[in-house]
Amino acid sequence: MPSTQLTFTNREEHRRWLATQAALPAGFRVGTTRFDFVPREAPKPAKMTLTLIALDRPTPDFAAVFTRNAFPGAPVIVGRKRLGEPRLGAIIINNKISNVCAPDGEAAAEQICAETARLLQLQPTEVLPSSTGVIGWSLPVEAMLAALPAATAGLTGGSVLPAAEGIVTTDLYPKVRCATVGAGRIVGIAKGAGMIEPNLATMLVYILTDIAVPRDTLRAMLRRVVGPSFNSISVDSDMSTSDTVALVSSGRVTGVSAAEFEQALARVCTELAEDVVRNGEGIRHVIRVHVAHAPDFDTARAIGRAVVNAPLFKCAVAGNDPNVGRLVQAIGKHTGLHAPGLDLSRLRLQMGGIEIFAGGIFRLDPQKETALVAHLRSAELYPSKPDASGVFVPPVDYPPHERCVEITVDLGAGEAAATVFGGDLTHEYVSENADYRS
Amino acid sequence: MPSTQLTFTNREEHRRWLATQAALPAGFRVGTTRFDFVPREAPKPAKMTLTLIALDRPTPDFAAVFTRNAFPGAPVIVGRKRLGEPRLGAIIINNKISNVCAPDGEAAAEQICAETARLLQLQPTEVLPSSTGVIGWSLPVEAMLAALPAATAGLTGGSVLPAAEGIVTTDLYPKVRCATVGAGRIVGIAKGAGMIEPNLATMLVYILTDIAVPRDTLRAMLRRVVGPSFNSISVDSDMSTSDTVALVSSGRVTGVSAAEFEQALARVCTELAEDVVRNGEGIRHVIRVHVAHAPDFDTARAIGRAVVNAPLFKCAVAGNDPNVGRLVQAIGKHTGLHAPGLDLSRLRLQMGGIEIFAGGIFRLDPQKETALVAHLRSAELYPSKPDASGVFVPPVDYPPHERCVEITVDLGAGEAAATVFGGDLTHEYVSENADYRS
Repeated sequence: MPSTQLTFTNREEHRRWLATQAALPAGFRVGTTRFDFVPREAPKPAKMTLTLIALDRPTPDFAAVFTRNAFPGAPVIVGRKRLGEPRLGAIIINNKISNVCAPDGEAAAEQICAETARLLQLQPTEVLPSSTGVIGWSLPVEAMLAALPAATAGLTGGSVLPAAEGIVTTDLYPKVRCATVGAGRIVGIAKGAGMIEPNLATMLVYILTDIAVPRDTLRAMLRRVVGPSFNSISVDSDMSTSDTVALVSSGRVTGVSAAEFEQALARVCTELAEDVVRNGEGIRHVIRVHVAHAPDFDTARAIGRAVVNAPLFKCAVAGNDPNVGRLVQAIGKHTGLHAPGLDLSRLRLQMGGIEIFAGGIFRLDPQKETALVAHLRSAELYPSKPDASGVFVPPVDYPPHERCVEITVDLGAGEAAATVFGGDLTHEYVSENADYRS
Repeated sequence: MPSTQLTFTNREEHRRWLATQAALPAGFRVGTTRFDFVPREAPKPAKMTLTLIALDRPTPDFAAVFTRNAFPGAPVIVGRKRLGEPRLGAIIINNKISNVCAPDGEAAAEQICAETARLLQLQPTEVLPSSTGVIGWSLPVEAMLAALPAATAGLTGGSVLPAAEGIVTTDLYPKVRCATVGAGRIVGIAKGAGMIEPNLATMLVYILTDIAVPRDTLRAMLRRVVGPSFNSISVDSDMSTSDTVALVSSGRVTGVSAAEFEQALARVCTELAEDVVRNGEGIRHVIRVHVAHAPDFDTARAIGRAVVNAPLFKCAVAGNDPNVGRLVQAIGKHTGLHAPGLDLSRLRLQMGGIEIFAGGIFRLDPQKETALVAHLRSAELYPSKPDASGVFVPPVDYPPHERCVEITVDLGAGEAAATVFGGDLTHEYVSENADYRS
């Protein structure tokens, strides 16, 4: 949970705040370029942005975690190999096409890396590729090679914001979070709006730091912090073939305590994960489910996920309808199917701090109903309204506030806990996804 | 798959066809009554229908299967007990309120049974209660007791259609399927529109037959036939707290082969299950996923479910968008998380008979794209259009046709197969469920 709840009343206010967060740590530069191309599979013009993150000198201290989808994209296959390389010098990211199961996809990714390396005087294996966008299409390699020099020529230090803007697809706004630890700094950017579920998502996250942390320590830390952050969110239960979280240190600042660094890293990851949900496709309510007194973390998180992935409950939240029966249905379905031994007799449920279920029965009355509706309304990000042709488009391109629908699931069955973030199921989601590719 | 694909151009045509299917087997009568009441939890007037199915004399030969949700409704708790009773004489069903986790819910269900029994001169334990509707509210017992005599007084043989109409909630139309076996008959009715997933759903199914089948045989048959029928469908992955499939024999017709009976029963169940999906809340495309050459039935069915439960793919289908990348994503997510040992290297995918994926890569071109769009369009049940206030309401109250989006997932990894039915994710679903209770 962010220590301060931010609110924004317009895009400019949000961009000004982002700019205050976006200072690049020492040793990094970013550059982007945007160009037109024609996809081979659906011959009508499209636009792609190439985003380049470059280190002033290659570093051995980098870490990455990837999707568990059984059909990983070619960049994920290449990226897993890069983890075995001695150094990383740059990350080259494209949007629009994700390069998944496309003919010669791996060769295409390697070609992009090789040309990036040549322009930056690196080894090809020192470049990490990333792609996001339509699954199944082929990268327009020739057009990308032609565009690369513009990205390298434009490399500048100062702000990570151009990269945060370059990597988006259907995101409404760029996402940047930072932390200062001693004399050093951590800055993270995220792309992610749909196909977001546990075990990462069409989510690309790049976290840059100038704080020196040895490679092995860095990798162990990243594995620990992704569990309660990026692996505890779900927009739509889909799991992308391209998810990537990369963490790179330029090593410029020494003498920072590892514990303090990890704590700050965890905070940056949790805030970015929550940003990804808040900016999730069509999300009008962020739902935060805190599962307490569970037998273990995995059970707690699984029940939280079951709640934020239950379509009927998500629809009720979208309609500001405190249909708590659907909440109990979701917990009961998960438990009946996946945790039949779990004793639910001490289950207590709260929404917005109001007790709604205890001792095996609902605790409802008209006064509570009114208060629950008010809680749901206060967490709404924007009102839903179709345009003249019946298409629902979010009217905001900034996060108006950080309030959530707050649900507490107290299992009364142990000492473990987990917090899961998800969102409602809205007309805006359907509008976005029933016609995304066209 | 129904042996004949039915089409209907208007409600009357469909009702006439239903009437031809609806003849009650010997030994059964049905009666319904509709009345107004005021729910305790949200004091504004509502309507409830009571539906009574009565046997001319109590029978020992009845079977039932229920939800696996960990919070079953009171009627399910009572129904499980009834399975231990020597005879069943009647089924009393109400819609509007599901009697789940409500204070004294079990006592309320027993009160309704007792009064039904008194009116029909049965033992209270010879009456099976069923409820569907809002979860968490309490049954209006007084109003129901007052209404019961009208239902018993109206009991008539002839047609099951009044019962099929009486049990619905948000269903667009009643669902009836029948079979003739020798001199006997099987007729089944189903209620179910939302909260539909494997392991049953807010689905109430009553199958009546005059063919004599001993209790134990009947129960074993029911367990076998629900697996590939009602437990192989999913509208929205939610699993109701009230799901019930009851099978009752009046025993009037003897001498029918058990094998022929079971085959006919399986067909009735499969057709009803498909009807439930076709009439699922907001469904504009039925998706039939046939998973072939799987190592076992459970793996095959789980992959089929993963496809029909993937929100992004469902949205693509809603938009007649052959976004096959999202199909591969769904299979890859499921396999990566739940079947990591499954070898997908021989995976072949077809949509509408067109090969779209083989040998690890997509097989797409603009001609196939056009053909895939045409296939999706031909399976559309009705066009999507919002009313003046932006609410999407299905323009049909009958099934226009029985065409499906046909997907074949050939795993090339065994000899087992499964067919799963599901639907798309539409504005109509969100409209229905973001404001269902209000």
